[in-house]
Amino acid sequence: MPPAASTTARADSPLYIEIAETLVQQVARGALRPGDRVPSLRQLSQQQNVSVTTALQAYLWLENRGYLEARPQSGFYVRTPFAKFIPEPQFEVNPGRPTARESDAVLAGLVEAAADPANVPFGAGCIGQELFPNRKLNLILRQIVRQQPLHSAHYDFPPGVERLRHQIARRALASGCRVSPQDVVITSGAQDAINLSLRAVARPGDVIAVESPTYFGILETAASLKMKVLEISTHPQGGMDLDELEQAIKKHSVKACVIMANCHNPLGYVLPNSHKQALVELTARRNVAVIEDDLYGDLAFEEPRPLTAKSFDRKGLVLLCSSVSKTLSPGYRIGWVLAGRFQAEVERLKLITSLAASSLPQWVVAEFLSSGGYDRHLKRLRAKLAGQVETLRQAAFQCFPKGTRISRPAGGHMLWIELPAKIDAMKLWRAALSEHISILPGPIFSAGGRYKNHIRLNAGLIPSDSSDRALATLGRLCANRS
Amino acid sequence: MPPAASTTARADSPLYIEIAETLVQQVARGALRPGDRVPSLRQLSQQQNVSVTTALQAYLWLENRGYLEARPQSGFYVRTPFAKFIPEPQFEVNPGRPTARESDAVLAGLVEAAADPANVPFGAGCIGQELFPNRKLNLILRQIVRQQPLHSAHYDFPPGVERLRHQIARRALASGCRVSPQDVVITSGAQDAINLSLRAVARPGDVIAVESPTYFGILETAASLKMKVLEISTHPQGGMDLDELEQAIKKHSVKACVIMANCHNPLGYVLPNSHKQALVELTARRNVAVIEDDLYGDLAFEEPRPLTAKSFDRKGLVLLCSSVSKTLSPGYRIGWVLAGRFQAEVERLKLITSLAASSLPQWVVAEFLSSGGYDRHLKRLRAKLAGQVETLRQAAFQCFPKGTRISRPAGGHMLWIELPAKIDAMKLWRAALSEHISILPGPIFSAGGRYKNHIRLNAGLIPSDSSDRALATLGRLCANRS
Repeated sequence: MPPAASTTARADSPLYIEIAETLVQQVARGALRPGDRVPSLRQLSQQQNVSVTTALQAYLWLENRGYLEARPQSGFYVRTPFAKFIPEPQFEVNPGRPTARESDAVLAGLVEAAADPANVPFGAGCIGQELFPNRKLNLILRQIVRQQPLHSAHYDFPPGVERLRHQIARRALASGCRVSPQDVVITSGAQDAINLSLRAVARPGDVIAVESPTYFGILETAASLKMKVLEISTHPQGGMDLDELEQAIKKHSVKACVIMANCHNPLGYVLPNSHKQALVELTARRNVAVIEDDLYGDLAFEEPRPLTAKSFDRKGLVLLCSSVSKTLSPGYRIGWVLAGRFQAEVERLKLITSLAASSLPQWVVAEFLSSGGYDRHLKRLRAKLAGQVETLRQAAFQCFPKGTRISRPAGGHMLWIELPAKIDAMKLWRAALSEHISILPGPIFSAGGRYKNHIRLNAGLIPSDSSDRALATLGRLCANRS
Repeated sequence: MPPAASTTARADSPLYIEIAETLVQQVARGALRPGDRVPSLRQLSQQQNVSVTTALQAYLWLENRGYLEARPQSGFYVRTPFAKFIPEPQFEVNPGRPTARESDAVLAGLVEAAADPANVPFGAGCIGQELFPNRKLNLILRQIVRQQPLHSAHYDFPPGVERLRHQIARRALASGCRVSPQDVVITSGAQDAINLSLRAVARPGDVIAVESPTYFGILETAASLKMKVLEISTHPQGGMDLDELEQAIKKHSVKACVIMANCHNPLGYVLPNSHKQALVELTARRNVAVIEDDLYGDLAFEEPRPLTAKSFDRKGLVLLCSSVSKTLSPGYRIGWVLAGRFQAEVERLKLITSLAASSLPQWVVAEFLSSGGYDRHLKRLRAKLAGQVETLRQAAFQCFPKGTRISRPAGGHMLWIELPAKIDAMKLWRAALSEHISILPGPIFSAGGRYKNHIRLNAGLIPSDSSDRALATLGRLCANRS
């Protein structure tokens, strides 16, 4: 039995949703199977120590999402999951051309809208604040302030606080990387890490190969550095098309490749190890650097934690970038690069762009990784996100029009949704915003303006009645347009 | 009378030095004049509540530095200060040419050597850790963690925490700038601010005018962005030669100008307001952006706090960059830009280079500026630094060979030293390092390798016997070479 949900109730996640999610997780784990009868309302209320009304709310919520069906005179049953029936976004081979992309003027407005608390934040990149181990982090923080009152009275120049680099090197083992603390540069988050890495491996005018779709922050960074971007066709489960990548490297003298091998944003896949290895070997043969964005690597739903592409790196050509923004704290701004042969250059660039990362957060993260129960925390967080992603996936499939296709993420908290071809994602974005709902339109995930009928939805936030209503509204807006 | 020094004694600054510095400050303020008899040892020991031995140590230390002279049977007297006799570095008009400077490979080694605790850090850019208001900052920090336990569970996207921007806008009034919180972008320190500003106003290949000498971090940043640098002859008290600047703008289509109008690093001057105004008007006529590095502006020795060049900006062309790294905390990594007409672009660049600055330090600094006694703290800090700068200045003039010239700083904590022409600063740097002393050699302050016989010494650290010995060693190394 899971612990009584009442002990973990939080103000902004109603108790009945907590209980419902526990059940979703049981289904995801296979502890409950399609067709099984779930506990009666009375049994559930006793098990979870809640009123029968709350138990009923939980079941109705699940029924609304298609998890349960009520059979008259009999009770609630696990419905044959829709999961197997939700088609995934289509894969189209569509080689790109190097594009000297200008910065996307829409982007600032998108981020602003996603961060505006007045909007339901399906467009945001964050996860629920309550999912972070805030209490434990604050305990450690107070302890460090007491023990090292001069914690911030100096610069912690690159590569950064040794104790943190030690912990990062230690944990890199779990993803297959044998590195030492000297191989780690601390940065101000993963975005800083990717920026420094791009600057270390390429110059203005150089061609960078990226997945398509890819995280818009990568496209913006490349654009701001005046690098050309080349989109490589990317399969929603299989990643970059390696034949196309090889042709592109030959044809366009690609300087570097930016990939997310684990929990891709926005597609959600975890690449098979064989594919990671093939990609690293292919690029190594051609001396092309690989910048691996592993920001979501610790959030893959299945254990053990997946290997990184970096783990197959024999020539020091892979620069692994990550951070704690999706696992411990976005506001600490602590990230890192394992930069291989570019280590000295990344250190130098960190120094001349911002001297150092913040000191105190480095110490807190180091201490948490060393003694804070990071693995225990991750286990809980992953289960939580897996449930939220699946819940949103099912609900979205019910709300959006016929013909909608949705990604099947293996980690992270993003859904990539292909809407019927008639729907214009930019128009949908604007219409949604006027209803105080933020989403992200597909074209910003492409250097060439592809994905005109795609959107990205964030499942990182704890579901609520308002997010339910927002989803229904999105469905209605689509129906009006299709 | 100053308060008894014993109440402020610290482990790493011997009590006698504390007492001695109080006396240096009295001389600097004019409370004691050349020729005055200072209190007897017995009087001093009573006043300061210390032993006669400690009082004697203080006077001997001052005598060693040339502040006091002992007259037999009579006591100690304030010596005619050497200050008026120390010649300043020479000014030479020497127009430069735009230089596409490669990054300085020596630099990483320099920073590493300066940060290595095994070396006496005359090459460092920091001030004594004990000079920061650490206790008060920690109090505020604990309070915020208690009141806002979710302080770092989200991103504080650009422009940054509103409460901090409000305080920065409020304080900008003291330097003559009328701005609102919307005119402020929070950055990860001043170096980040300068980087973002340069990227906002110029592109690879563009020409940037800089002072000569100038802070090497500016040269490195420009080099890493593939911008060309043009050195403008700079007077050790009067700043950039404006005629030369005007000619340069005409001839080389200069895109932007980077200046330190207050407490120049390394020269130490505070520009007269008339000069600031003339510079801003000249650049405005030609639509040239001005990036003003005001990092040391709050550390000018005289009150009131000097105006910024930005205060004369009527066209929004001046980008004022600063931080709390020299006043409150280097490790917090909190800086800002008042970016004028480039505000939106700087915000956008901050977003795509590192998403946001650290959250918690923003809240702590906001609270300190609002209620922490910032002005009181600055008053103490400035007096302290003025004393340390003058002490090191006098001592250096005694140790270095005949023909040495030393800057007369009006603020900050740097000394710019012109050694006799025969002395090669790069060789001196290496020789010093082998004696575990770090200094900074002049050529890194120039895009064209000028200042071959100049060095920069840091007076920000609390003087100690080991820094005394190091200075004597530097003098000896020079003597061997001249």
